[in-house]
Amino acid sequence: MKIFAYGIRDDELSSLRKWEAAHPDVEVGYTGDTLTPDTAKLAKGSNGVVTLQTTPYEREALEKLSEYGIKSISIRNVGFDNFDFKDLNDFGMKLTNVPVYSPNAIAEHTVLLMGRLLRRVPEVDVKFDNGDFTWAPTIGREYREQTVGVIGTGHIGRVVIKILQGFGAKVVAYDVYHNADIEKQGLYVDSLEELYKQSDIITLHVPLFDSNKYMINDKAISQMKDGVIIVNCARGELIDTDALIAGLDSGKIGGAGLDVLDNENSVFGHKWGSIDNLPNPKIKNLAERLNVIITPHNAFYTETAVHNMITVAFDSNKALIDGETPNNLVDTSK
Amino acid sequence: MKIFAYGIRDDELSSLRKWEAAHPDVEVGYTGDTLTPDTAKLAKGSNGVVTLQTTPYEREALEKLSEYGIKSISIRNVGFDNFDFKDLNDFGMKLTNVPVYSPNAIAEHTVLLMGRLLRRVPEVDVKFDNGDFTWAPTIGREYREQTVGVIGTGHIGRVVIKILQGFGAKVVAYDVYHNADIEKQGLYVDSLEELYKQSDIITLHVPLFDSNKYMINDKAISQMKDGVIIVNCARGELIDTDALIAGLDSGKIGGAGLDVLDNENSVFGHKWGSIDNLPNPKIKNLAERLNVIITPHNAFYTETAVHNMITVAFDSNKALIDGETPNNLVDTSK
Repeated sequence: MKIFAYGIRDDELSSLRKWEAAHPDVEVGYTGDTLTPDTAKLAKGSNGVVTLQTTPYEREALEKLSEYGIKSISIRNVGFDNFDFKDLNDFGMKLTNVPVYSPNAIAEHTVLLMGRLLRRVPEVDVKFDNGDFTWAPTIGREYREQTVGVIGTGHIGRVVIKILQGFGAKVVAYDVYHNADIEKQGLYVDSLEELYKQSDIITLHVPLFDSNKYMINDKAISQMKDGVIIVNCARGELIDTDALIAGLDSGKIGGAGLDVLDNENSVFGHKWGSIDNLPNPKIKNLAERLNVIITPHNAFYTETAVHNMITVAFDSNKALIDGETPNNLVDTSK
Repeated sequence: MKIFAYGIRDDELSSLRKWEAAHPDVEVGYTGDTLTPDTAKLAKGSNGVVTLQTTPYEREALEKLSEYGIKSISIRNVGFDNFDFKDLNDFGMKLTNVPVYSPNAIAEHTVLLMGRLLRRVPEVDVKFDNGDFTWAPTIGREYREQTVGVIGTGHIGRVVIKILQGFGAKVVAYDVYHNADIEKQGLYVDSLEELYKQSDIITLHVPLFDSNKYMINDKAISQMKDGVIIVNCARGELIDTDALIAGLDSGKIGGAGLDVLDNENSVFGHKWGSIDNLPNPKIKNLAERLNVIITPHNAFYTETAVHNMITVAFDSNKALIDGETPNNLVDTSK
C-alpha cells in the first residue's frame, strides 16, 4: 500500500516519520506542494492521498488522481468547504477529515490569554523592554478571584472550564445544548444576559451560525460588567469589531484576547514588516492597544495538534484503502 | 485607638480605605515615607505602627516610637530580617508579620510563565512587533503533555500542583516534608535526581537554606532532560546563574521563567532605560534571550495579595494594641 501526502510542512515531518515507522507495510511519499492538476502526477502509483490546503481542490486534479485509481482522500484539517462534492461523487471518491485534533491546544491558549491580560503582561513587557524593573503601577489580578463566563460547552469550552476550576475561578456557562456534566455541576445560567451580568471574563467557544454573527455587539457589551475581559478563540465573526473598539475606548471593556478576528484573512498569514503597515484599520487599531492581545489564529498550533492531524489523517486514509468506514467519513451526499 | 502606617503605596490605598471603613473605632494615619528617626514623629499620638520597607529599621526610629508609647509594630510582608530583635526587646515592642498573603498570586504567575514558554510567546511577540502574522516556526506545546516536577510542596507548591492538574499535566513532587494529600495522590518521588530525570518542566517552591543554595547547579542540570524548562518564583540563590547560562547556551535547558535571580537587587526595583544598560552582566545575558522570561520579583503582586497584606497587618496591629496575641506574632526571643 502507498499513501502520498500533499502540503507537508516542516513541523509535520517528525509526526509523519513516526507514522511511517509504525506502519512498515505502508509506503509514504510526500511533497510540500499543494494538490494541483500539475502535482497530481506525484501521487501516481499510490492508493490514497492525504492533503491540506486552504485553496480550492480543482476538479482536474481530482480527475487525474481518479485516473490513477486513487479513490481515498483524507484531509488533515476539519473544514472541507474547498471541495466540490459533485467532483468527489463523480469520481467515486471517499473523503475523511479530522474533526477534533486537540481541544486542549485551544483551551490552554484561551486560558493563557486571560492570564496575560489579568497580569497586564503587555504593559509589563513594555516596561521590561525599557529596562524598567519596578512593580507599580502594573498590579495584577488573580484567576481565583474571577467569575468567568464560558459561552459554548462543547469539547473546547469544557476543557476551558476544567482548567479554570483548577485555578479556583468561578465559572458560569451558557449553551443552547446542555452538557450533562456541566449541568450536574450547576454551572449553566439561563440566558446570555445573565452570563454577561455576572462575568468578569467572557470567553467564546461556539461555532458560527447566521444567528450568532456579531453576537458580541453594542447591546451585549452594554449588559456586561465594567472592565470586562473578552476572549475569542472561536470565530472572528462572533464579535462586532466596531462595538469592541467602542467598548475599549470607553473603558467598558478592560481587555481582549483575540485569536480570531472579523476579516482576519486581510492580515493573518502574512508578514507586514510592522504593525504600522497592517492594511485593516480596525485590526491595526486593536493591535496597537496594550490591553489587547492578538494571536494569528494559532491557538490550535501545538505539536500535539499537528501530530494528531497527521496521525488521524493517515490512519483514516489507510482505513479507506482497506475498505473500512472510518467514523470521520465525510457525508458527501448532501 | 489610632494606627499609623508607613511606606503606603498608591496601590494599597483602596484596601486601606476599606479597612478604615470597616473599623470606625480606629483612626488611621499614613505616609508614603519609610520609618526613619525623622518620620517617626508622624506616629506621635498613635497606639501602633504598620510598616513595610526593605531597608533596615533604625534603632533611633524605634526608640522614638517607644517614647511615644508605641509598642505594637506590624509589618505588611513576610520577612523581618531588617529588624534587630535586640532593639525590639529593649523597647518592649511586639512584632507581627504577614506569613501568607496569597499563595495563588505566586502559583498562578508560576504556571503562567510555564505556558508562555511552552507557547514560545516571547518569540511570537517579536514576530507580532514585526507585523509577522504567520504560524511557523513558533509551534507550541501543551501543558497536558508535560511532566512537571514541583520541588517544595508547601502552600505555594500545592496550589501550583492543583492548577497543573486542572490542565491535565502529570505532576511529580519532591519535598523533605511530605504533605499528606500529595502523599495520598502518590506524587512524591524519592529523590531530586529522580525528579530531574522525569520532568519536562521543573519549578522551585522551597525556602532558601545554606544547604540548598545553588541547588540548581551544573550537576543537577546534567541530570535533567534535554530541553528542560526551569521556573523559579522562590529565591534567586537556589539557582547558580552560571550553570543556568551554560545550560541555555548548550541547549540542555530549553527555557527559563525567573521571577527571582541571584543578586537581583542589582537590577530589580530600578529603571535602566533599556536592557542594554543593565549593570549585572549575567542578568543582562538572561534578559536578552527569547527563551527566558524575567519578571522583577512581582509574582506576588496582585490586588488580592496587596489587600491581604494591608488587612492582615492592620488586623494584627489592632489585636496587639488590644492586648491579644495574634498567631502571626514574631518570636523575637531568638
